[in-house]
Amino acid sequence: MTSAPFCAAVDWGTTNFRLWLLDAQGSVLGERSSGEGMRACLPDRFGPVLEAHLSALQAPAELPVIVAGMAGARGGWREAAYLDTPAPLDALHAHAVQVEGFGRDVRILPGVCQREGGREDVMRGEETQLAGAWAESRASGLFCLPGTHSKWARVEEGRLLSFTTYMTGELFALLSQHSTLHDMVAAGKGDETSPAFRDAVAEMLDGAGLTGKLFSIRAASLLSGDAAPDAKARLSGLLIGAEVAAMRKDLDAGAEVTLIAGGSTARAYETAFSNAGLACRTLDGQDLVRRGLFAAARALWPERKAA
Amino acid sequence: MTSAPFCAAVDWGTTNFRLWLLDAQGSVLGERSSGEGMRACLPDRFGPVLEAHLSALQAPAELPVIVAGMAGARGGWREAAYLDTPAPLDALHAHAVQVEGFGRDVRILPGVCQREGGREDVMRGEETQLAGAWAESRASGLFCLPGTHSKWARVEEGRLLSFTTYMTGELFALLSQHSTLHDMVAAGKGDETSPAFRDAVAEMLDGAGLTGKLFSIRAASLLSGDAAPDAKARLSGLLIGAEVAAMRKDLDAGAEVTLIAGGSTARAYETAFSNAGLACRTLDGQDLVRRGLFAAARALWPERKAA
Repeated sequence: MTSAPFCAAVDWGTTNFRLWLLDAQGSVLGERSSGEGMRACLPDRFGPVLEAHLSALQAPAELPVIVAGMAGARGGWREAAYLDTPAPLDALHAHAVQVEGFGRDVRILPGVCQREGGREDVMRGEETQLAGAWAESRASGLFCLPGTHSKWARVEEGRLLSFTTYMTGELFALLSQHSTLHDMVAAGKGDETSPAFRDAVAEMLDGAGLTGKLFSIRAASLLSGDAAPDAKARLSGLLIGAEVAAMRKDLDAGAEVTLIAGGSTARAYETAFSNAGLACRTLDGQDLVRRGLFAAARALWPERKAA
Repeated sequence: MTSAPFCAAVDWGTTNFRLWLLDAQGSVLGERSSGEGMRACLPDRFGPVLEAHLSALQAPAELPVIVAGMAGARGGWREAAYLDTPAPLDALHAHAVQVEGFGRDVRILPGVCQREGGREDVMRGEETQLAGAWAESRASGLFCLPGTHSKWARVEEGRLLSFTTYMTGELFALLSQHSTLHDMVAAGKGDETSPAFRDAVAEMLDGAGLTGKLFSIRAASLLSGDAAPDAKARLSGLLIGAEVAAMRKDLDAGAEVTLIAGGSTARAYETAFSNAGLACRTLDGQDLVRRGLFAAARALWPERKAA
């Protein structure tokens, strides 16, 4: 027999929906995922989408649901106002917004914002991954969460002190799809293990200016006349190298970064950190957002935990 | 009475066509311009487009034509192979390609390339502007030619020693049109005279990483809830600031830059140079390309000059 579900935990991003059915120990009883992210959901679609996934897992009608991510953004399901930095990662639940007028108890966790002029920044979802890391290991220090909008976050004693967003993934997509580099990058087959990637990272760590390096990808292809097999790896290396070089300026040599990523993204950043002389430990992001959601659920519904 | 035409000079770029009818002193007898750039011309259209503009100016049938720009690129009218750096700006004409099988004497000037690994670069058209500056004033030093692909060129004693392309204008267009910053920048009304532009330039000159600053434009708008009136000026300031900051690393304090630009672009770079503590003198680009074309024509057709 399987144990009874304690709650459903949902990571509701811009483009993806992911749901876990969890027991009182946080173990996964069932799982669903789809492309029904915030972008695919009109304001009145969030409820039906959630219920469809819950019923597919035969979740009981009274099962509460904890949600993190863009579902709490303006224009999402319900706006969960940002917490200001420094933000207590073990108290996100206290600022969750309940979806009124809905048939079951659904709480949406807040994002976190930073208001310092010139350094304004926002996150929704990463704070829950960081809360998961805190709940799991009480880890402090510098965290790197790569993605369309990579986040670098400073955590001390469970408080998110400050963070910076790098548009690394979005710039890679823009330059790959819409720029004069398109043909070269589309033909590229290199990856984060190639010398071209490492060389590009090294150039940025040496202090090169990104916007003055990008065109060399096109020029190298025009001059060699070939399809620039390294172009994709070089573009990736320049962008990730620019991100790591900018962060390293404020770090001591040999400082450790906790990388929250998986697959080829994790390998690319691990390579760049190694080039930069930074120590690195890698944690799995999907696992951490689930743990952060579970930690918030336990705090919100202690009586269910006891049950 | 007007003096007889000596030659026609054509600046044939990617998106624009510009032609001047010049006398033996280089004075302008007539002028044409259109959107019939290289992109708008199939290989067999270059000749008819040129002849249509010449006949509109009643140019004699034997009038020779000197051409600079993308018409000499692979896929243009005739490919004029790149000259390698260091390139003699007063000898571009010696490497011009004649369009064979065409009813009149048409010569296309070469572009210039740099083959150093990791610093590969190419230009077509800017070398003719630099040749015009050399012909006019024998100026040496560092030249900045802003644009979709900004060029920074080092000229000593009439030789183009080295150059770097910054994708500043293309990145501004990509981020304005296709990125998550689109809505904010579209609503922006600031310009290069606004404090937002100066502040953004200053942040980049202080060593900030570009990819970590771009998202602050979006975050500031989300947090303030307004339409981010400064977004456009801030984006422009971050990109131009990144370009100037990267170049300044290799310059002495107070070094002079010769800026080849006009209008608001010139004002924006002049502002950034002033923030960066760089001296600046500004020359008009269209005027210089015409002078560079005329200098090449005089060297190619001395007997006509005598006539």
